Amino acid sequence: MPVKKQIIECVPNFSEGRDRETMESIVEPFRAFEGVKLLDCQSDKDHNRMVVTVVGDPESLKKAVVAAVGKAVELIDLRKHEGQHPRMGAVDVIPFIPIKNVSMKEAVELSRDVAARVSEAFDLPVFLYEESAATPHRRNLAAIRKGQFEGMAEKMTQPEWLPDFGPAAIHPSAGATAIGARMPLVAFNVNLDTGNLEIADSIARKVRFITGGLRYCKAIGVELKDRGIVQVSMNMTDFTKTALYQSFELVTMEARRYGVNVVGSEIIGLVPMAALIDCAVYYLGIENFSPEQVLESHLME
Amino acid sequence: MPVKKQIIECVPNFSEGRDRETMESIVEPFRAFEGVKLLDCQSDKDHNRMVVTVVGDPESLKKAVVAAVGKAVELIDLRKHEGQHPRMGAVDVIPFIPIKNVSMKEAVELSRDVAARVSEAFDLPVFLYEESAATPHRRNLAAIRKGQFEGMAEKMTQPEWLPDFGPAAIHPSAGATAIGARMPLVAFNVNLDTGNLEIADSIARKVRFITGGLRYCKAIGVELKDRGIVQVSMNMTDFTKTALYQSFELVTMEARRYGVNVVGSEIIGLVPMAALIDCAVYYLGIENFSPEQVLESHLME
Repeated sequence: MPVKKQIIECVPNFSEGRDRETMESIVEPFRAFEGVKLLDCQSDKDHNRMVVTVVGDPESLKKAVVAAVGKAVELIDLRKHEGQHPRMGAVDVIPFIPIKNVSMKEAVELSRDVAARVSEAFDLPVFLYEESAATPHRRNLAAIRKGQFEGMAEKMTQPEWLPDFGPAAIHPSAGATAIGARMPLVAFNVNLDTGNLEIADSIARKVRFITGGLRYCKAIGVELKDRGIVQVSMNMTDFTKTALYQSFELVTMEARRYGVNVVGSEIIGLVPMAALIDCAVYYLGIENFSPEQVLESHLME
Repeated sequence: MPVKKQIIECVPNFSEGRDRETMESIVEPFRAFEGVKLLDCQSDKDHNRMVVTVVGDPESLKKAVVAAVGKAVELIDLRKHEGQHPRMGAVDVIPFIPIKNVSMKEAVELSRDVAARVSEAFDLPVFLYEESAATPHRRNLAAIRKGQFEGMAEKMTQPEWLPDFGPAAIHPSAGATAIGARMPLVAFNVNLDTGNLEIADSIARKVRFITGGLRYCKAIGVELKDRGIVQVSMNMTDFTKTALYQSFELVTMEARRYGVNVVGSEIIGLVPMAALIDCAVYYLGIENFSPEQVLESHLME
C-alpha cells in the first residue's frame, strides 16, 4: 500500500504590491521548487500587497516558503512601506491549510516548524495564530497585528505580546510575521432581488456566528451597484462543520421575512471540492456516500 | 505554460473471474506500468468475469492495455469458459473514457489505435463500438456481442459483421473484442418510500430516454427487499448533457402522482467530480462558476 500523498495549501501575504521585480523574486521559489505548485498570485497597488496561493507536499512547501520569506526579508523595507491594507511585516501572514491526507494537527506542526526556521534564519519575530495559537488571545490575526509595523516595537515590550519564536524585538526592516494553520476559507455570497442594503445587513446578522447564526460563518451586507441589488457576503471558515447549503438555506429563509428572493450566489476564488460535493450529497439525499467514490480523488495521490 | 496532463480511464472486461493466478497476471501491467493507476478490480465467480478500472495518460494507458490484452489472450480459453454474463472474447470489451484534458475525439483515436495494435499483435478481430463505431448499428455493444463466442464465427461471415480490425475470423481461443470510447457512466439510484415495484417501474418509464424521458438516462425499477422499498435505478450515460439533478427532480415529480416520497439516493461505484459539482452549482444557484475554481482541479495537472 503506497503512502498517501499529502497536500497542504499556503497563502502567504507579502507587503509589496507595486515593484514587479521584487514581487517576481519573492514568488520565484514557488515556481522553481520541486513538489510545489503556484496556483495564484494577486497583487494590489493600493494595498501595496501580494497574496500568493501555493500547494505542495509538506516538506517541499516548507522549503519554498522559507526561501520566499528570505527573499521578502531581503527585499522589502517596511520603514518605506505604505498601503491601505494593515500590515506588521514584510511577510505579513503565512497561513497553512490542510487539503488532502493532512490533519489539522500536522498543519499546526508544519506552521511551528516554519516559524522556528524563519525566525532563526532571518532573525524575525513570529507570532503563531489561528489553530497554531498558543493562547486564545492570539488566535485572531487582527488582534496580533493591531498597532501595525509602526506600533509593534512597543507592543512587543508587553509580556502578553512576546513573540512565540525569534527575538523579542521587531526586525528593523521586516517587522514581524504571523504564521499559523487554519481551515480553507470559502468566500460565498448570496444575491437578493432587492437594492436595499439594510435587508442584506439584517439577514447577515441572522446568519453569522457573532450575532447568533452559524458557528463557522462570517457575513456582511454588500451592495452590487452595477446590478442594483445587494448580497449577503459570507466567509465560511470551516465548511466541514458549517456547510455552504446551511448558510444558503438560512439566507433564503430569512429573506422571506422581507418578501425578498434569492436570485443566485457566487463563489469567489478557490473552493475545495468537498465543500461543493457536500452540497450535492445533501440536495440529492445520497446515502452512504464516500469521498473515495469521486474518481478524481484517486488522481492526486 | 506547461502542457496540461491528459487523463483517460479504461474499464476493460476480461472473461475470467475464478482463477486467481490468471486474473493477477492480467492485472499485473496495470500495477507495474509507469503512468497508469489501478483504481479497482472486481471479479465475479458466477459471471466468471473480471472488470478492471484503471486511469492514466493516453500513451501509458495504451501500453498497459495492450500488455494486459496479450496476457488475457495467452491465458484465457473461451472454448472452456462458462459464466452467466454474455461474452464474445477473452477480452470482452475495452471502453476508454475521457476524464481530464481529453476530448471525445482523442479518446476515439486512442481506441482505434489500441484496436489496431491488439488486432495485429494477437491476431484478434476487433469491433469498434459506442463513439468509435464506424456505423450506427455497431454503437450498441449488445448488438455486436449477440450470438456470443459460440456464434461469432458464423456471424462474422456476414458482410455487415466483418470486424473493423484484424482477421475476418474469430481467434480460436480468445474470440473477438469490442473496443470503443464512451462518456463516463454514473450509476444513480433514487429510493422511494414504497414497496410497490410497479410504481418504480412506471416512474422509470417516465424518466428514461427510450420511453420518452431524458436523453442520457436509462432506468428500471428495482426492489430493495431488505429495506422493503423500491428504487428507480438509473444509468446516466452522459452527465454533461443530462444532469443528475434533472433525473432526481423528475423522479421526485413523478412520485407525487402516487403519493410517494423520495427517501434518498445512492451512487454506485465511481463518479466524476464534475457530475456532483454540477448539482451543487444548480441547487445553490452559483453564477459564473468555473471548474478552475475547484482547488483540486489544479492538483491533477
